[in-house]
Amino acid sequence: MNKFRYLLEPRSIAVVGVSDEAARPGSQAVRALRRNGYAGKIFPVNPKYEEFDGLRCYPSVEAIDEPIDLVIVGVPAKAVPAVMEMCAAKKVGYVLVLSGGFRESGPDGIGLERRLLELARRSGIRLVGPNCLGLVNVHANVYAAFGSMTREPRLEAGGVSLVTQSGGFGYSIALACAQAHIGFRHVIATGNETDVDTVEFIDALIDDEQTRCIVAYIEGTRDGRRLLEAGRKALAAGKPLLLWKGGVTDQGARAAASHTASMTGTYDFYKALYKQTGIVEISELHEAADYLQMLQAGKSLDSNGIAILGVSGGSAIVFADAGARHGLVLCDLGEQTRQRLAPWVPGIGAIHNPVDLTAGYFAPGNEDKIEAVLRALAEDPAVGGVCVNLATTGARGSLAAARAIVRVAGDGRKPVVVFSSMPRSINGEALALFEEAGVPVFPSPSRAANALAMLLRLGQARRLLPAAARPADAAVQAVSIAPGSVLSEAQSKDLLARAGVPVTRDVLVGPGEQPDLGGMTYPVVVKIASPDIPHKSDIGGVKLNLASEQAVRAAIEEVAANARRLAPDARLEGVLVSEMVAGGYELIAGAVDDEVFGPVVMVGAGGIHAEIFKDASYRLAPFDEATAMAMLDELRCRPIFDGVRGGATLDVRSAARALAALSRFAWEHRDAVQEVDVNPLFLAPHGVVAADALVIAKPGRPAEAMAATPATGK
Amino acid sequence: MNKFRYLLEPRSIAVVGVSDEAARPGSQAVRALRRNGYAGKIFPVNPKYEEFDGLRCYPSVEAIDEPIDLVIVGVPAKAVPAVMEMCAAKKVGYVLVLSGGFRESGPDGIGLERRLLELARRSGIRLVGPNCLGLVNVHANVYAAFGSMTREPRLEAGGVSLVTQSGGFGYSIALACAQAHIGFRHVIATGNETDVDTVEFIDALIDDEQTRCIVAYIEGTRDGRRLLEAGRKALAAGKPLLLWKGGVTDQGARAAASHTASMTGTYDFYKALYKQTGIVEISELHEAADYLQMLQAGKSLDSNGIAILGVSGGSAIVFADAGARHGLVLCDLGEQTRQRLAPWVPGIGAIHNPVDLTAGYFAPGNEDKIEAVLRALAEDPAVGGVCVNLATTGARGSLAAARAIVRVAGDGRKPVVVFSSMPRSINGEALALFEEAGVPVFPSPSRAANALAMLLRLGQARRLLPAAARPADAAVQAVSIAPGSVLSEAQSKDLLARAGVPVTRDVLVGPGEQPDLGGMTYPVVVKIASPDIPHKSDIGGVKLNLASEQAVRAAIEEVAANARRLAPDARLEGVLVSEMVAGGYELIAGAVDDEVFGPVVMVGAGGIHAEIFKDASYRLAPFDEATAMAMLDELRCRPIFDGVRGGATLDVRSAARALAALSRFAWEHRDAVQEVDVNPLFLAPHGVVAADALVIAKPGRPAEAMAATPATGK
Repeated sequence: MNKFRYLLEPRSIAVVGVSDEAARPGSQAVRALRRNGYAGKIFPVNPKYEEFDGLRCYPSVEAIDEPIDLVIVGVPAKAVPAVMEMCAAKKVGYVLVLSGGFRESGPDGIGLERRLLELARRSGIRLVGPNCLGLVNVHANVYAAFGSMTREPRLEAGGVSLVTQSGGFGYSIALACAQAHIGFRHVIATGNETDVDTVEFIDALIDDEQTRCIVAYIEGTRDGRRLLEAGRKALAAGKPLLLWKGGVTDQGARAAASHTASMTGTYDFYKALYKQTGIVEISELHEAADYLQMLQAGKSLDSNGIAILGVSGGSAIVFADAGARHGLVLCDLGEQTRQRLAPWVPGIGAIHNPVDLTAGYFAPGNEDKIEAVLRALAEDPAVGGVCVNLATTGARGSLAAARAIVRVAGDGRKPVVVFSSMPRSINGEALALFEEAGVPVFPSPSRAANALAMLLRLGQARRLLPAAARPADAAVQAVSIAPGSVLSEAQSKDLLARAGVPVTRDVLVGPGEQPDLGGMTYPVVVKIASPDIPHKSDIGGVKLNLASEQAVRAAIEEVAANARRLAPDARLEGVLVSEMVAGGYELIAGAVDDEVFGPVVMVGAGGIHAEIFKDASYRLAPFDEATAMAMLDELRCRPIFDGVRGGATLDVRSAARALAALSRFAWEHRDAVQEVDVNPLFLAPHGVVAADALVIAKPGRPAEAMAATPATGK
Repeated sequence: MNKFRYLLEPRSIAVVGVSDEAARPGSQAVRALRRNGYAGKIFPVNPKYEEFDGLRCYPSVEAIDEPIDLVIVGVPAKAVPAVMEMCAAKKVGYVLVLSGGFRESGPDGIGLERRLLELARRSGIRLVGPNCLGLVNVHANVYAAFGSMTREPRLEAGGVSLVTQSGGFGYSIALACAQAHIGFRHVIATGNETDVDTVEFIDALIDDEQTRCIVAYIEGTRDGRRLLEAGRKALAAGKPLLLWKGGVTDQGARAAASHTASMTGTYDFYKALYKQTGIVEISELHEAADYLQMLQAGKSLDSNGIAILGVSGGSAIVFADAGARHGLVLCDLGEQTRQRLAPWVPGIGAIHNPVDLTAGYFAPGNEDKIEAVLRALAEDPAVGGVCVNLATTGARGSLAAARAIVRVAGDGRKPVVVFSSMPRSINGEALALFEEAGVPVFPSPSRAANALAMLLRLGQARRLLPAAARPADAAVQAVSIAPGSVLSEAQSKDLLARAGVPVTRDVLVGPGEQPDLGGMTYPVVVKIASPDIPHKSDIGGVKLNLASEQAVRAAIEEVAANARRLAPDARLEGVLVSEMVAGGYELIAGAVDDEVFGPVVMVGAGGIHAEIFKDASYRLAPFDEATAMAMLDELRCRPIFDGVRGGATLDVRSAARALAALSRFAWEHRDAVQEVDVNPLFLAPHGVVAADALVIAKPGRPAEAMAATPATGK
């Protein structure tokens, strides 16, 4: 039972702000509740009326002498705090404010909205909105809403719950799904999210027995970590969470800022979160409908091998193209399968995948043959799922094929999906059969491939993520980083080395000292060492490729002279002499404590390539080595690690270990560390090594925050 | 009038291969012609019948004593050649072979198909098919087809013609468009394309007065140059050509090879062709319908600035996200526009783009206000087009908005498009108004953005391509390249230099000679010079960064010794001493004479980056400097040329000149040159220079092909 039970299924509702003006949100809500058969009590409130819409009308919330689960408020913004006060006095649990005129309308509204939150916090009222379209419980006929959510077409009952920050656009998602005959449980528009936000609703809906899938549209969230937890909880509960993040481009984010004042967050970090939780990203209306259809079939795609069966070669090609983009392959059929197919597949050409039955095969009388073919394919161990291309097959042929398909689809765990381009007006009988049997039907081969690929990713997430959510707690030395402190390269490297990130062997030569390079191997590099010079190259503070002691001495003089001349106020620790790293590939890595997502770790191709070619991947810290391997696997420069053009094979696993270590460091010191730059990070045939590093502490904070925070395991 | 007039609008049709078996293609064709009201004469042919479907049935084509424009053949493959012979005797102009069992069925079929082509060539018959679904002329009720093309739903008449290699999948495109109320002129399935192919039909349809837009689905083409010409002709005629290329991924291409035996060609080269012709790429069924709706509105998008008007902030954000991906911007509104909007836009917040009218604004009685707002936006000089987000607005509100929208949309050249997520069952009246007025309505903001972006690209192509199609004929020195010859670096560079591609200053030092480096600046590079050693580094044949005469002498000895040891049979010209290029960015360029597309030029980021990061762009040769600039602009490494991180600005124009020169060289010597590699090509602040180059000649050919072919200007 979810914690919002009496918000989402209230036994009684008061509606404050009803009037003869039919367009008023409160008036709309009362009429919608009654029209849709809401079974609880409704108490319209307006001191001017004795009766509203045939119901007794109350002068105030206080005047209602019965318990009230939910108060819907539709009065002008200025009058809302007074209503909230009365709700508090009446010990109402939930208040839903439909009215606008708050944060979205300027300074006065911001003050009013703050007041609502204070009242909610003080009284224990949970507040939904303000500035929202309301909420609908389709199963219980609760239409606590106005506008499009209460108008035709009425949603069918089903297992999908939708939470949306934007009522207008979010309800477009519901309508698109409704056209694909997807049924709904709850539809909730959260508006300004002053108190209850999308993530809290998601969390509650996972606990709702009647909810099987959750779809959410958000423009931003204040706390990415709660979304991470909700995503993992949804995955563990077997209730897929589909998320549309509006404002993923700079332009979209600017438009979002003018819509509500949400933190939009960096899209790269959202994508990392999806990968770490199995949250299914959606970015098109029909995609939501396609995915829900696929998920409602209740199948799982455990391998990326797809068999295609059809009468249209072109459709198979289009599927193959789309599948290749999503990581699906038209797998080779086993010898046994080919033997089983031989009696049924028309004789022209060899039997291979895609299986072409030739025109006219989908026809009445062929049901058994179609079933035999389909069964042979579905039972091939290499086949993870089957797509049947009916394409333009007409009513009678489609019905024959549908009879065979539903027989096979009903039996196993492997998904069997259909592409049909015929309109419902022609093909209605077959479509009804598919719908009844839960066989997904897509209007293009590409959409079939896209939905199957989603199922594959979700299955992978289900298998891999429980471990990733509990990164191995390697022993990490607690270190103390003073807030506001500025760390030099030497200090930064020392911190990272103790955290488990390999760094180059360095010797710090103090001002005026003679270098003692011990057993260091030439060539070496000389770099100015100063906490005040983060960008050493810019002031001539780096000399590479030094092959002799003589060259090292000259370089030490030169970089020190450059620093004195170009950064006269910098505190100089001396110079750092480091072995040069040869034969490796240059990566960059880093961590940042993001306002929304907390510590996030990045790795990318080195030099200008991460920036120019956008070759970087991200994960929320902390994470384990397997997750770090997945990060590295995403890089487009990944083939280089396996040795290209005669290059050596590089030690990817050591890079993964270093990234996982970096992620633990960033997580455990998140109160003190704002940013870590590891640039360059050389990946060599034997090991990985940070040739330079910079740890940037957070600005000064109260003393109790100064000690490093111990790991919490979260 | 198109050249296939009496094929596509025949005055009389004979159908060979009718029988009591209703499913036979010939029987289906006769019935489809009659059922759909074909007005010409129909002559069924089968010696066994006196009458078929109420028509007199003839024993043979020869027995028909009237002129015949088209003979449809549905008899088994083996019997087709004999029918063709009779058609030849009867001087029939067109034969359409529906029957399968040819190339797609194995060796016997290949022989039979070759026989058909010989018969066609000898007799002058133009042959469509075999192995195709036939053709439909919707305007003239010609249903010379079978299967899905003759079944319900019947296509509406309109200005779109569709040509498709795959009948089954291609007709899915027609059905998807029909559901969006797109009307058709011709639908042609070309099957094996033994004689007439898709490109020839496209060419003819451009000349068809009733055809306004052409959609084609192809899996491959034998001659990319004819497609290039057809694309340019379509652009010049103002008849947009929408092309879906199946088999664009390796997996798709393999599936295509098993479908028909088409050349699929390299997708990169198709994309180049699209850019050089304004051909509109499609890759999803609904995309075809969206684009046609957009094109049929007859508007043009002359700037990428879009104004968004609506009552749903979320929809504007989603449009902004999709628009940003396609190069559309939500432009700033002019001061005058904001003043015009002020009286009409509700007071909360500033007036900016997206314009949020707030919930309930789309309502009866607000028509004039909506019109005023819309007109102010459409008349802003920064606004290229307007998208109105009705989103979930209901029937009455949508109708009110529609009345205002059609008034404004009808007036100007700027596109006004609509996003509505309401089903037709609710919103039918508004949709009818939009359809009548030619206002495109899309079911998602992303699809509206995608269609507008297509219109923008098409407009750009219309403005820019006529010049690109006639690359300036710079004076090119004719050079002679012997077929089968193998060229050394020195010879290759000499050829390129004469063609206008700058190359490094090199000195060839013969075996045993002393180097005379003249005024060459150190450092220099020494490379083994041999036509038999194309990959010099592999045998230790390159020494870089040589700073003194002494070092040069030693390097010459060393590379020569390495070559004698590791490539003992290679003919040695000596060694090449070249100035090293400093401070430039490393590109690679090249040209290849592709079997399908002819000479194609490539440029990409240097080293392993073109390969690893797929940072390369392509164009069909020859082309002008402006086209070469566009190629360079496409590279992801492009920002580097403008100087990043304090780097110098590089001389992009010189690189464009070199690429245009390379394209002319590759085109003019296409009979002799198979491939040109220019790697590396250094782009420096002042100029561009090829530091290495290799010209690979074609294998030996008859003597008359040996001379370089003069430019034809095509």
